[in-house]
Amino acid sequence: MATELHFTKGHGTGNDFVLYTDAEGNNDLTPAQVAAICDRHFGVGADGVIRAVRSDSLPDGAAALAEDPAAEWFMDYRNADGSIAEMCGNGIRVYTRYLIDNGLVELGPGDTLAIGTRAGVRDVQRSTTGFQVDLGRWRLEPGEPVVRARNLAVARPGQGINVGNPHVVVALADADELASADLAYIPQIDPEPADGANVEFVVPHEPLVADGVGRITMRVHERGSGETLSCGTGIAAAALATRHWAGRGAPNIWRVDVPGGTVGVRMFAAEDGEHVSLSGPAELVFEGDLSLG
Amino acid sequence: MATELHFTKGHGTGNDFVLYTDAEGNNDLTPAQVAAICDRHFGVGADGVIRAVRSDSLPDGAAALAEDPAAEWFMDYRNADGSIAEMCGNGIRVYTRYLIDNGLVELGPGDTLAIGTRAGVRDVQRSTTGFQVDLGRWRLEPGEPVVRARNLAVARPGQGINVGNPHVVVALADADELASADLAYIPQIDPEPADGANVEFVVPHEPLVADGVGRITMRVHERGSGETLSCGTGIAAAALATRHWAGRGAPNIWRVDVPGGTVGVRMFAAEDGEHVSLSGPAELVFEGDLSLG
Repeated sequence: MATELHFTKGHGTGNDFVLYTDAEGNNDLTPAQVAAICDRHFGVGADGVIRAVRSDSLPDGAAALAEDPAAEWFMDYRNADGSIAEMCGNGIRVYTRYLIDNGLVELGPGDTLAIGTRAGVRDVQRSTTGFQVDLGRWRLEPGEPVVRARNLAVARPGQGINVGNPHVVVALADADELASADLAYIPQIDPEPADGANVEFVVPHEPLVADGVGRITMRVHERGSGETLSCGTGIAAAALATRHWAGRGAPNIWRVDVPGGTVGVRMFAAEDGEHVSLSGPAELVFEGDLSLG
Repeated sequence: MATELHFTKGHGTGNDFVLYTDAEGNNDLTPAQVAAICDRHFGVGADGVIRAVRSDSLPDGAAALAEDPAAEWFMDYRNADGSIAEMCGNGIRVYTRYLIDNGLVELGPGDTLAIGTRAGVRDVQRSTTGFQVDLGRWRLEPGEPVVRARNLAVARPGQGINVGNPHVVVALADADELASADLAYIPQIDPEPADGANVEFVVPHEPLVADGVGRITMRVHERGSGETLSCGTGIAAAALATRHWAGRGAPNIWRVDVPGGTVGVRMFAAEDGEHVSLSGPAELVFEGDLSLG
């Protein structure tokens, strides 16, 4: 029997999602349905699907409610191939916009919205450009893997950073070298991390810091997706690695330019150690109705 | 002032389109709006936009009506960059499906629907897989340009074919060679045609002809678009070139496998010389509502 699906398409700096509401958790999609929806020629086209479901309707949501009883809504995020993803730094902003615009939550200036995710509860606030989300704790990885990318003349050392998922950040000499990298091919990391990693190629602006804000431009290759217009956790990793390289006195506020736009990164002290947050736009583009086979 | 646009998304073998109705010709889109709609991350995402407009509402439509007074509807087709296109062999099937499903035309088995296009009036009929469209006359081009594609070890001779737009068709040795070509890069044609050309790489099946039907697999690089899942006129060109190479006794019915599916090609005698037609599927995927800035 065909199911009708009412959905909204949205994006955060070009990282794009199909969102729909299933408050009581009665309308889960199969991996094959998610993959069909995300196909950019035969379906709707998106980097992933986000189901808006009440936390008390899902086992994963119960864990979120145990962590923070205010986490009424859960972000059930699936990758474009139908696989489950824990978190998405751009997606959670778009999800917040969706919940607000559909009257499912209210969020005043200065208020905090707790959203359940498989990586734990994430706190979202309004920001000047859209929304800010606290990604929580992060850590530098030991070692200095060597990264090779197609069309880059030399191999370069990378910095491993974990922001809930693994990244390797590589500094390039200038914008020309950044533009020359062919990220249609998977960058080679030596030694290869056990679960792979997203790779971020960054170029510092000249000067690196202006008005107390660090500035970099980056491109990203995401595991399993190829080059993307934007990757939220990759943006955080790129700013964290650059601050690490810059050393003492480097700022805790960063502006990161990606092919899909600009995202802000902020590092701040929290009870359990330093957290990193992202801030940036979240746009809803259109609503649609789809018949699922 | 923001304009609301109700649209339908559809595709023919993965060549995909945003379609909308503007019967009286009051709601033309600017090239910038078309480009924004066709953006696959920030907009709806499509290879082009098709406006359903009555022929008597447009100057180009008046020319179509002069050619055939039955051509009530005109296919106003725009490429993804907003530029005007004359015709689209996959798009016209999807347009036909759209007109029928929206109750704008009726088309019984064996009936012919005349559709106005900037390349002239095109006749469409129902077929077993969807719709068949008469692309009209075609011609072999003189000369034997040499084609090089990235990752192909040798340069190969090509056959120029004009099917309303220019193509160069190149035969490869086998499926492995076809798979190895890197069409992210523009194939080099020597001598380069004045207006460029789409390039089709074809591999004959073994046997080439089964049950009276010629069979080939192809990939296509479209001028200005890169590799696509399907190109209607390119499919016709590939079948025409292969028939030319096969020589006397080659069939006039072909099945062409492309990355997006399978399309039939038929050559048949008409009053003004031999015509070529395409037949294949046309699917409507979803309806949506968009706010245009």
